[in-house]
Amino acid sequence: MKVILFLLFIATGAAEAGAKINCLSWRIAVETNNIRDWKTVPAQCKSYVSEYMTSQQYRDDCNAVVIAAIEYAKSLNISKEGKDLWVFNIDETTLSNVPYYSRPQVGFGATKSSGKKFESWIKEGKSPAVPGVLLLYKILLDLGIKPIFITDTKEEFRQLRIANLKKAGYHSWFKFICKGKNDSELYTEHKGNWKTQKRAELVKAGYRLVGNLGGWDDIIVDFLLRTFKMPNPMYYF
Amino acid sequence: MKVILFLLFIATGAAEAGAKINCLSWRIAVETNNIRDWKTVPAQCKSYVSEYMTSQQYRDDCNAVVIAAIEYAKSLNISKEGKDLWVFNIDETTLSNVPYYSRPQVGFGATKSSGKKFESWIKEGKSPAVPGVLLLYKILLDLGIKPIFITDTKEEFRQLRIANLKKAGYHSWFKFICKGKNDSELYTEHKGNWKTQKRAELVKAGYRLVGNLGGWDDIIVDFLLRTFKMPNPMYYF
Repeated sequence: MKVILFLLFIATGAAEAGAKINCLSWRIAVETNNIRDWKTVPAQCKSYVSEYMTSQQYRDDCNAVVIAAIEYAKSLNISKEGKDLWVFNIDETTLSNVPYYSRPQVGFGATKSSGKKFESWIKEGKSPAVPGVLLLYKILLDLGIKPIFITDTKEEFRQLRIANLKKAGYHSWFKFICKGKNDSELYTEHKGNWKTQKRAELVKAGYRLVGNLGGWDDIIVDFLLRTFKMPNPMYYF
Repeated sequence: MKVILFLLFIATGAAEAGAKINCLSWRIAVETNNIRDWKTVPAQCKSYVSEYMTSQQYRDDCNAVVIAAIEYAKSLNISKEGKDLWVFNIDETTLSNVPYYSRPQVGFGATKSSGKKFESWIKEGKSPAVPGVLLLYKILLDLGIKPIFITDTKEEFRQLRIANLKKAGYHSWFKFICKGKNDSELYTEHKGNWKTQKRAELVKAGYRLVGNLGGWDDIIVDFLLRTFKMPNPMYYF
């Protein structure tokens, strides 16, 4: 009965007030898509997330994903016609916003994010590469798999983002797809989101998507495609 | 370059021999389905996994999933016709095999599992409930959602498993579906595995599946259904 009360205590949100949250459990539940539709990191886990995102653990977690992706990419039979593509997301996938999140007025996902603050960070063009991902990118190019970027970045920031990607070490790609004004935020059952539609167009045009690295909004409707999810407990799409 | 060499060192399996694996990174990569098709826990992570599976962290991780599932279940509009079902897997979902995995000859997933050894454990009928899941089960019954079990357990063990479920506190359910001789191990693109087919039959018969708690093999083809994955770094389907 004690366990039941404790669980319900947490479930009703009373945990914020008193009971202690296990922040590693929270993080894993987020990573596995068990906890969804959350808006901010629980106040109690703010320090945990800030320490995690700047820790060797985060870098090791990224590397574990990268290693799995490299092993998989090396196992593929790549066509010689250059029709094999690998889909990359940008934020917290190829480029890191950790320096932005670490600013006191942003607070590592525990403060509700402001579009304007984030846009001014994007304009600075200073995002570094996410640990390990540049290695995956280079290995894919060596294997003859063409990278493509599909990002929620607005069209108006296309050139800024491209400059930032190059500065971080990502030098060539097949396509760079930004989110246009008519691309919907909405996720549709069966059809997925606008990113799913862009991927479907590529398949229709004769390309083979062999891998996809991103967050939950990038991978959730992909079944036929092997997907990889980057660690990122700071926001939910 | 140092990073590249280190990563490749791990990627080629040389890590087993020398380099240290970050076992938490390995566990998260398994939980997020980034590392797939693995057969045994890496030798270096055997103690880590044995400590984890018997720790408060594992119980907290289970509880985090259960809390998310309860919150979701409470948000549903349940029909009065008793047509709403919740799918439960058994092993490491409703019943725990931790006492079995903890036996020296089994070694918490680091030793290749033997079907015979596992079957003799099933015959003992001593699996306890997985932490927190009994609470979810009771709340679902209270809400008018009927539990159903879909399990890889062979038909010949049906009665043993039912007795074990009752002993562990799971007293009533709508259906208990075991794996028959003709149910295939194979996972088919688009159509999923035999469990997907059993779920589709229920939907065709007019039931509404409102939730599904299990491992990757239970949840991977479900998009229209909200899914929950239990923590379990001990084996991969």
